[in-house]
Amino acid sequence: MRATTLHGAFDIRLAELPDPQIHRPTDALVRVTAACVCGSDLWPYRGINESKPGQRIGHEFVGIVEEVGADVATVRPGDFVIAPFAWSDNTCRVCRVGIQTSCENGGWWGARDREGLPVDAGQGEWVRVPLADGTLVATPSVPPTELVPDLLTLSDVMGTGWHCALGAGVRAGDTVAVVGDGAVGLCAVLSARLQGATRIIAMSRHEARSAIAVEFGATEVVAERGEAGVARVRELTDGLGVDAALECVGTDESMRTALDMVRPGGRIGFVGVPHGVTVPIEELFGRNVRIGGGVAPVREYLPALRDLVLAGDIHPGRVFDLTLPLTDVAQAYAAMDQRRATKVMLLP
Amino acid sequence: MRATTLHGAFDIRLAELPDPQIHRPTDALVRVTAACVCGSDLWPYRGINESKPGQRIGHEFVGIVEEVGADVATVRPGDFVIAPFAWSDNTCRVCRVGIQTSCENGGWWGARDREGLPVDAGQGEWVRVPLADGTLVATPSVPPTELVPDLLTLSDVMGTGWHCALGAGVRAGDTVAVVGDGAVGLCAVLSARLQGATRIIAMSRHEARSAIAVEFGATEVVAERGEAGVARVRELTDGLGVDAALECVGTDESMRTALDMVRPGGRIGFVGVPHGVTVPIEELFGRNVRIGGGVAPVREYLPALRDLVLAGDIHPGRVFDLTLPLTDVAQAYAAMDQRRATKVMLLP
Repeated sequence: MRATTLHGAFDIRLAELPDPQIHRPTDALVRVTAACVCGSDLWPYRGINESKPGQRIGHEFVGIVEEVGADVATVRPGDFVIAPFAWSDNTCRVCRVGIQTSCENGGWWGARDREGLPVDAGQGEWVRVPLADGTLVATPSVPPTELVPDLLTLSDVMGTGWHCALGAGVRAGDTVAVVGDGAVGLCAVLSARLQGATRIIAMSRHEARSAIAVEFGATEVVAERGEAGVARVRELTDGLGVDAALECVGTDESMRTALDMVRPGGRIGFVGVPHGVTVPIEELFGRNVRIGGGVAPVREYLPALRDLVLAGDIHPGRVFDLTLPLTDVAQAYAAMDQRRATKVMLLP
Repeated sequence: MRATTLHGAFDIRLAELPDPQIHRPTDALVRVTAACVCGSDLWPYRGINESKPGQRIGHEFVGIVEEVGADVATVRPGDFVIAPFAWSDNTCRVCRVGIQTSCENGGWWGARDREGLPVDAGQGEWVRVPLADGTLVATPSVPPTELVPDLLTLSDVMGTGWHCALGAGVRAGDTVAVVGDGAVGLCAVLSARLQGATRIIAMSRHEARSAIAVEFGATEVVAERGEAGVARVRELTDGLGVDAALECVGTDESMRTALDMVRPGGRIGFVGVPHGVTVPIEELFGRNVRIGGGVAPVREYLPALRDLVLAGDIHPGRVFDLTLPLTDVAQAYAAMDQRRATKVMLLP
C-alpha cells in the first residue's frame, strides 16, 4: 500500500509499504476513505519536534472496515468508522473515567504497540487498528459523501475543540475568547456555543477563518494580537475580562494572551501542544485563574458528536478548505505550513 | 490601643498605636475578641517575604461592632462579626462572580486603602473595617464562647480549605489526597468530606494533626513524604492515583507531590501561597491534569460555613491547639514557626 512518511524537515513522501494484516483477534483492518493533516503534524514537519527518517505520520482518518479479528464485536466489515487520534481499549479504569488518551493499553498511530508491533498511521491507504472495539466508532450506515468531512473532524479537531471548552468549564451565559483560528480554534468556537456561551470572541485576522468562526457562533472577531488583542478584548468586556479563554495554539504568546484576558476567577482551557509555554503559578494564584485541558480524549466525545453531525446540527467539516489526493500529500503539508490552507483533506 | 507589628525577621512586637476611628460612612469599628496567626504570616516573620520595619500584621479576627458609619446597613453596634482575610465591597462585578479577594474596591488588612488611608491589621485590640457591609458577616446573636474558635477559622483557614476542595472540583465518590497538615490542610480534609469525597488520604507524620485529620474525615493517613508518599498513595489506589489532590503548602515539593499522585484527568486544588513553585505545563497537558485555586474568596463562603458552625455540624476550630493572650503574640509566632503549635488563637 501507499502511506505517508517523514524523512526530515519539510520532506514528506508517499512511500510504498507492505499491506497491513490482522495480527491479533482484537484488530480490524480499515481501508481509509479520507484522512487529513493536523496542525500538530507541522511540528515534526518543520523539524521543531524530533522525528526518525522514514517515520509514519498522520492520526486522523475515517474508512471502511474490511476485515476484523475473531474477538471484535462492535464493528463489522462494511461499516463506516471514525478513528480517534489515539487507540484505546475503552475498558480500563483510565478509559472509564474518560481519559482514553491515557489508556492503560492504548497507544498512538504510527508508533509501536506494547509488544513492539508497528501500528499504521492515518495518512495512508490501509490501517491495522488495534483494540478495534475500544477505538473505532461506527455510523449506523455508510454516510453520504457530504457528511464525511464533518465526521472526519471528529478524529481530532472537533473533539479537541470540545475538550478545550470542557477544560475551561464553559457554562451557559459565559463570555468566552478563543485564541487561535486554526481548525481546533474554530471547533472550539463551535463547542463553546454548544456548551452555552452567549458571547464568543474569536481572535483572528484571517478573513476566511473569521467567516467560519462567525458561522460557528462567534459573536465578535478581534483581529489584533498579543497585547493589542488583550486590550481589545478587555475593552469589549468593559475592562473586566472574559469568563473563559480557550487556548488553541500552544505557544507561550498564546497562553500569555489567554491569561491576560480572563477575569479574576476565570478559566483557561488549553489544547495546543505546549511548545515553550510557561505558566506563572503566582499569577494563577493571585487572580484565581483555573487551567485545564490537555491531549483530548476524543474517543470519549465521539459518539455524541457523531450523532450531532448525523442529525445535521453541526458542520465542523467547514474547517476543510482544501482537498487533495493522497499522492499530493507533500503539497498538503506545504499548504498548511504556509497557511494557504486551514486544514487539508486527503482522499485516496 | 495595642497591636502587633513586625520589625524584621523573627522580631514580632506588641506596639502601642493610636486608637482607630470611623473615617468614612461605610466604616465600622470592631473590638477584636479573638484573632490568630496564619501560616502565611510566617513567610514575612521568617524574612522570606519582604516586610517594612514596624508594619502591621494579622488578617484573621472576630469581634464586636462598637460603632458604625452612617451608611452601614447590615451590621450594628453589639453584633458579633467575622472578618474575612481581605476586605471587599461585595457588590462590584468581581465580587458578584464570587472572587471578593480581587474586589475592585477592596484591599488587605494592615495595608493602605485606595486613598492612602492606613487600614488596621487583625492582631490588635481594635480594627477600623472599611466597606463594613461588604466585608463583615454577623451572627444572629452573640455566639457562646465555645463556638468562637470555629467561627474564627472562617476568617481564613476553613474558607481556604473549602476553596481548595472547590478548586479541585471535589465530587461525590472521589478519592482525594490532601498535601499539608497545617490548619488549612486539615480544613481541606473537612471540606473534601463535606463536598462528598468518600476516600480522603491525609499526608501527615504529626500525631496530633493526624488525629484531627481523622476526626475531620480522613479515611487514611500517609506519613511518608515526597516520592515515598507518592508511592504509598499510588499503592493505596492500586497504582491509579487519586481523583483530586489538595495542595495546602505552597512549596515546589508539595506541588510536585500533588502532581505525581493524581490520576490521568485528575484535578489539583491549590491554596498554599506559591513560593518557588513551577508547574510543568507539558505534564498537565499529557495527563490532562487540571489545576485551580488561589487566594480564597472566603467572604463568598462565609455565610454558609457560619450556618454549618452555628448548627454544630462542623468544628473547624479544633485546629487551634494553643491559646495565648495578645501580649504573648511573639510566643505565638515562635510556637507556630517551630511547629510546636498548629494554630494559635490570640485573646485580648
